[in-house]
Amino acid sequence: MCNPSIIEKVRKRISRRNLLKVGATSAAGILASGCKSIPKSKPNEITPESISFNQVVDLTHTLHPEFPAWFTPGVERKFGTKTFLPPAIVEVERVMKFEEIKINLNKISYWEHVGTHMDAPSHFSEGSTVDKIRAEDLVLPLAVIDIKAKAERDPLALVTLEDIKNWEAKNGPIPQRACLAMNSGWANHVKTPKFKSLNSEGKHQQPAFHIDAIEFIKEERNVVSIAVDTFSFDNLHSPENDVHYSWLGDERWGIEIINNLDEVPVVGATIVVGQPKIQGGSGGPNRVIALI
Amino acid sequence: MCNPSIIEKVRKRISRRNLLKVGATSAAGILASGCKSIPKSKPNEITPESISFNQVVDLTHTLHPEFPAWFTPGVERKFGTKTFLPPAIVEVERVMKFEEIKINLNKISYWEHVGTHMDAPSHFSEGSTVDKIRAEDLVLPLAVIDIKAKAERDPLALVTLEDIKNWEAKNGPIPQRACLAMNSGWANHVKTPKFKSLNSEGKHQQPAFHIDAIEFIKEERNVVSIAVDTFSFDNLHSPENDVHYSWLGDERWGIEIINNLDEVPVVGATIVVGQPKIQGGSGGPNRVIALI
Repeated sequence: MCNPSIIEKVRKRISRRNLLKVGATSAAGILASGCKSIPKSKPNEITPESISFNQVVDLTHTLHPEFPAWFTPGVERKFGTKTFLPPAIVEVERVMKFEEIKINLNKISYWEHVGTHMDAPSHFSEGSTVDKIRAEDLVLPLAVIDIKAKAERDPLALVTLEDIKNWEAKNGPIPQRACLAMNSGWANHVKTPKFKSLNSEGKHQQPAFHIDAIEFIKEERNVVSIAVDTFSFDNLHSPENDVHYSWLGDERWGIEIINNLDEVPVVGATIVVGQPKIQGGSGGPNRVIALI
Repeated sequence: MCNPSIIEKVRKRISRRNLLKVGATSAAGILASGCKSIPKSKPNEITPESISFNQVVDLTHTLHPEFPAWFTPGVERKFGTKTFLPPAIVEVERVMKFEEIKINLNKISYWEHVGTHMDAPSHFSEGSTVDKIRAEDLVLPLAVIDIKAKAERDPLALVTLEDIKNWEAKNGPIPQRACLAMNSGWANHVKTPKFKSLNSEGKHQQPAFHIDAIEFIKEERNVVSIAVDTFSFDNLHSPENDVHYSWLGDERWGIEIINNLDEVPVVGATIVVGQPKIQGGSGGPNRVIALI
């Protein structure tokens, strides 16, 4: 999907970086690549080389009504002039019961963006909804950047451009079309107040990405997805949701509240994002699996 | 998970087949294997040999309010003494709107068992809910049995034991720990009345599995999951939901309304079932991906 606002955004980005100097043909190519993040030789072929694995790791938290989220059920949230009343994190209403009719069936309801979940481009843009993300874009090389040490000292620690450079000096360039995941250690805190780390004003604190790191992996490394083990790509250092707008507004997507990053290698695993294909979805709970 | 009723069920199965004759030690092993369908050498290792792929195929339909299901929204259904009023197939309520506050967020609600989805053991038993199914059990060799020719002639066609034997004569034994999928051609009918193929009494007709085939792949082939491109493992030939009770009651699970089976090989692909990990879920919409 590539609507006029996205084309305009890409055009601005190109203009900003003076890429038009490289000539009209290349600029058109870059414009096109802004609409389709993955250049491919033929449909469904994700790589000319085979990917191999013999181990599976679950990168998903179990979603339940007490799982922490960026909102608190029943506590109003204001965005602009609008006020919203968040419901339960997830409601699992037992409609049919095995003890009564030998069948179990639940009615499930939730606001998207709870538990381990995707943020689709449409969450913070007019871009693609979850159903428009192709399966071949949901299977990606996984690269993990560990900032546990500084996150332990500072709940507002950021993955900086310097962190990325240091990572690459050690591990080589981030693979093309990767999912780049931040391991801040926050996955171990989902059952404690540390996960929200409320400050004196009652605001959430958690590690996140620095916008400069985001611009680099977008412009220079063609990273397809980011992932964080916290509930947001942004923190109080970017109160305007800079990362969300920059990343999702560029037809890219990400995963929040990912789990078990300590159990996968820094590089070499493949991530499979099992995102339900609900028409019009801006994201939502999924099953994220690593193949090693 | 292995509760007393499951142990009792396995015990009965063993007794029925006189397997106790093989001696107490083996019988204990079989009992144990009834509780854990996958014998494993070490955690997360799904196979001692590597699995390779370089292509991805989406086996998932897009879920939307007009997608066909085994119920009709707003039309009462009776089970035993209970009457139920099904809601919309899926409700996507726009809570936050980009045009208003530069954020999109929906409230999603559905009865489980719509769209391409899992039936967990708990759907028709006291067995495991979706959150208890391990990720390594969601990555399986895929075997596809094509009954399109007879399903074209008869909407109540069944995958029989003979079909399985013929398939094996041609393709070798069904791989251990496989997902065995029925390709009846029904995935091509989701947009037409053919998908439900109502008979003169207004009852659904669709291809399904014969109970004898089910018992064979359970007892003799350790198949972990079945899959169908229709909305039920059972049809009018098994009005008592024999297949559901036999299969799910044995701590196995399956996928209904799978898509695109024509695009995967008869054997050799790997299926990854991206099942959201909602605590207490008896199944529900997922993303099913084939790696080739």
